[in-house]
Amino acid sequence: MTTARRDTYTPETLLSVAVQVFNQRGYDGTSMEHLSRAAGISKSSIYHHVSGKEDLLRRAVSRALDGLFAILEEPGAREGRPVDILEHVVRRMVEVLISELPYVTLLLRVRGNTATERWALERRRDFDHRVAELLKAAAADGDVRADVEMRLVTRLVFGMINSIVEWYRPDARGATGREVADAVVRLVFSGLRGD
Amino acid sequence: MTTARRDTYTPETLLSVAVQVFNQRGYDGTSMEHLSRAAGISKSSIYHHVSGKEDLLRRAVSRALDGLFAILEEPGAREGRPVDILEHVVRRMVEVLISELPYVTLLLRVRGNTATERWALERRRDFDHRVAELLKAAAADGDVRADVEMRLVTRLVFGMINSIVEWYRPDARGATGREVADAVVRLVFSGLRGD
Repeated sequence: MTTARRDTYTPETLLSVAVQVFNQRGYDGTSMEHLSRAAGISKSSIYHHVSGKEDLLRRAVSRALDGLFAILEEPGAREGRPVDILEHVVRRMVEVLISELPYVTLLLRVRGNTATERWALERRRDFDHRVAELLKAAAADGDVRADVEMRLVTRLVFGMINSIVEWYRPDARGATGREVADAVVRLVFSGLRGD
Repeated sequence: MTTARRDTYTPETLLSVAVQVFNQRGYDGTSMEHLSRAAGISKSSIYHHVSGKEDLLRRAVSRALDGLFAILEEPGAREGRPVDILEHVVRRMVEVLISELPYVTLLLRVRGNTATERWALERRRDFDHRVAELLKAAAADGDVRADVEMRLVTRLVFGMINSIVEWYRPDARGATGREVADAVVRLVFSGLRGD
């Protein structure tokens, strides 16, 4: 005998369950049945909150994307030399990635099979482009080294930051978001050999 | 009517077909039937060359692992200060990753569901450990910055290097392995702001 849990979900709390299932099974591999089992409520209860699986995906990746785009509106991203703005943005990207870990993880795994996924990829590309523009402006100022191609640098820096979702686990003994952000900023801007 | 291609494979050429299929479908999602179709020869012809799917996986990840471990035997990895050895190893890791791209891609996606996968993960951990030891030795010499935790640095540098498999495509207009290796070494050791 199974007892259905009483539906005390809001769209937000339902979202956190859905994101976990999406990250475990992959979005394509997740059915409404899987979501219903993980949440412990019926499919029709889920439809009471959201219009379906793609609606949940849209809300989840929006949370990640809104967190990333909000960085560009912060004072530290609006004033100063491009290289310093870039440093602020890199630091905050790491912090947002860690504070919104499951949502950003999902965003980074989006494939492009549905309209929502293609929309998310498009917004991700917009964000990456904004960061690449900052890097170009810093290079034009002579504030970053000129002996590495900027497209390569963008790829490598995003590669380093995005790889954090593969190993970072929030846990009392591990590094905090701030410590990881410090490490990334020091490594990316000053390198291992130091200032 | 289908015409079976004449079996002119060697274990090595069969391997390159298998690795492509593994990378596309995932190792778990690949059957001997998929391999037989991709190679255009019968399953029994495949069994003539190798003992099965797991044998192909073992050969493929061995090729990647042997390439990585061979770096540690190179003269540049055996003499000099640890920080310079580390720089040599990082450069060569990028070059090997790019010259053996499909094999390293497969290695990085191994999950651990079979004995062969667990063996591959174990050897990968050995390799990562050897690199982490070099970093520690360089830190003990005072040759790398002391204000970032070495475990974090190891994760981030491997994250940057391993992310290359996600975007690097060998193509006449793109960066060569050497250019990507130069960019990684400059970024990791001297940082964006330059020497």
